[in-house]
Amino acid sequence: MSTTTLVNRQVRLKSRPEGIPQAEHFEIVEAGVAEPAPGQILVRNIYLSVEPAMRGWVSAVRNYSEPVAIGAVMRSFAAGRVEASRDAEVPAGTLVTGLFGWQDYAMVERSAIQRVVSDRDLPLSTSLGVMGLNGVTAHYGLLQIGRPRIGETVVVSTAAGAVGSAVGQIAKIKGCRTVGIAGGAQKARLCSEHFGYDAAVDYKADDFDALLAQACASGVDVYFDNTAGPISDAVMAHLNPGARIIVCGTASVANWDPPPQGPRVERHLLVKRARIQGFVIFDHADHFDAAYRDLAAWLREGRLRYLEDVLDGIERAPGAIAGLYRGENLGKRLIRIAPE
Amino acid sequence: MSTTTLVNRQVRLKSRPEGIPQAEHFEIVEAGVAEPAPGQILVRNIYLSVEPAMRGWVSAVRNYSEPVAIGAVMRSFAAGRVEASRDAEVPAGTLVTGLFGWQDYAMVERSAIQRVVSDRDLPLSTSLGVMGLNGVTAHYGLLQIGRPRIGETVVVSTAAGAVGSAVGQIAKIKGCRTVGIAGGAQKARLCSEHFGYDAAVDYKADDFDALLAQACASGVDVYFDNTAGPISDAVMAHLNPGARIIVCGTASVANWDPPPQGPRVERHLLVKRARIQGFVIFDHADHFDAAYRDLAAWLREGRLRYLEDVLDGIERAPGAIAGLYRGENLGKRLIRIAPE
Repeated sequence: MSTTTLVNRQVRLKSRPEGIPQAEHFEIVEAGVAEPAPGQILVRNIYLSVEPAMRGWVSAVRNYSEPVAIGAVMRSFAAGRVEASRDAEVPAGTLVTGLFGWQDYAMVERSAIQRVVSDRDLPLSTSLGVMGLNGVTAHYGLLQIGRPRIGETVVVSTAAGAVGSAVGQIAKIKGCRTVGIAGGAQKARLCSEHFGYDAAVDYKADDFDALLAQACASGVDVYFDNTAGPISDAVMAHLNPGARIIVCGTASVANWDPPPQGPRVERHLLVKRARIQGFVIFDHADHFDAAYRDLAAWLREGRLRYLEDVLDGIERAPGAIAGLYRGENLGKRLIRIAPE
Repeated sequence: MSTTTLVNRQVRLKSRPEGIPQAEHFEIVEAGVAEPAPGQILVRNIYLSVEPAMRGWVSAVRNYSEPVAIGAVMRSFAAGRVEASRDAEVPAGTLVTGLFGWQDYAMVERSAIQRVVSDRDLPLSTSLGVMGLNGVTAHYGLLQIGRPRIGETVVVSTAAGAVGSAVGQIAKIKGCRTVGIAGGAQKARLCSEHFGYDAAVDYKADDFDALLAQACASGVDVYFDNTAGPISDAVMAHLNPGARIIVCGTASVANWDPPPQGPRVERHLLVKRARIQGFVIFDHADHFDAAYRDLAAWLREGRLRYLEDVLDGIERAPGAIAGLYRGENLGKRLIRIAPE
């Protein structure tokens, strides 16, 4: 089979956004597809991931990874099927995930494959969400950094999101009381009714502070922070002694250059003997296999639920990040660009 | 011997300060001294301690200990000699430390004695400083929370102070590169020349940011924070990946009600995979004996130096806290109220 007749639609970064990337910062360009050279693997992407971290990837501000270059294919996790291969260990038909970019086809070497998806009883889309970095991030951050104990109260921001919803459910599996913070009545209801939080608080409600105080009447032992900003300030007022705060994301802050002002936290940390810790999941690859085993087991047992927000067609990609920040999605946002 | 002829001068809290306690917030009152009842121990205080934490002890703002009541003897650590005792295990002549208050005599029970000072080759005054909570605080905070590794850069604020100077020297003993931040050229010189810091930066200098950047050219792995505020903001800009920040005190912030604003730290923590942790040394009494053993050994070996700022006479006590916050002392501030 020749691959040279294939057309590769690519979403490339056209200009560098200040703040949240919008559709206008990208362009879709058609490129050709080569034949794999020895050692090369051609992946047909099926699902492209859309996630809050992409704002950082296209930012010129110093970050945990190099900024995506202007004119380059947008960096993205993707899940797909090997279309053609000159690596005998990764034959055609293998399902794989990796940083394959917002494009139809990615030519990679074996080292670029993040994971071979062997749990074929689980939908391939989960490999970019609850069975991908979202799930692993929730698992590592909550259990390794937060270290919740039975009976403790765990608060989660963006509680209905791809990471947050997994955090809340894992905390519940571990015997904690869970409080979810989400934007809007619909997401708050989702927290209570779908993801099993013991309490859910809508941060857009006029009486958010009072509702949070009520939900956290026994204090906060672990706060899994996906937002930073005023939501976190409100949670800080309820810390219990020995509280652990995991900084996983900063979704509520549109621009860190310069950093916005907020109430200083040192006194809380001192008086409450508390800890705030940031992490970047890519540092913890040695934890992934153990996390995948737990997550797959909980999924099969029906103890771990997830929601997906699947947009059809690569032309939906350019505007998809801004939509995330507007909070228009329910669940993990994906772009489906080929049949599974 | 009768104790009823003794006069007990007491420094009592007269009114509750907003912010830093001044001389006018205290009054000196003469009281009588009773005979010890069975189980009681009368301590003749020799040294009274003066420390930044006292601001918190007299504050009405929620804290890690109950506020000192109006009209009560000011809470204070003190070192003294047992004058009379009806507890056979703590006979007259024993040297002891404890929360004996700003007064000549304290009638206590055995449980109130923090430590029996048996290292008689070391000056009694050290039991309130480098061989007391200051030294233990430095030891625990740096080694147990900061966990410095050989070759790492450790930055200390209030670096010439009672806690800070011990932190810098312990870090040096553990093979780290040390950077001290202190207020004024004299204290910065003290850091370099007396306490052995590899670099010292005066935060009052016009070019503080540039001097700090130069001193931290290889980044900051551990920051032992005694100040909070703008000094800490400057240090945060130089964190290395995996940095640990120990919040021990907040000396640069005069009032936390409401908390002052400062640049939000979440992004630093996330991108640098860093950790900020507060602690209160009273939680870690199980660590004290091991710390005292290390500290005494380093003192005897001449590897751990300390400075004291001894004021003579109990009438110096009321104004002594405000003086600390003005930075007028060099070294651990003590009030000597009787011959050793």
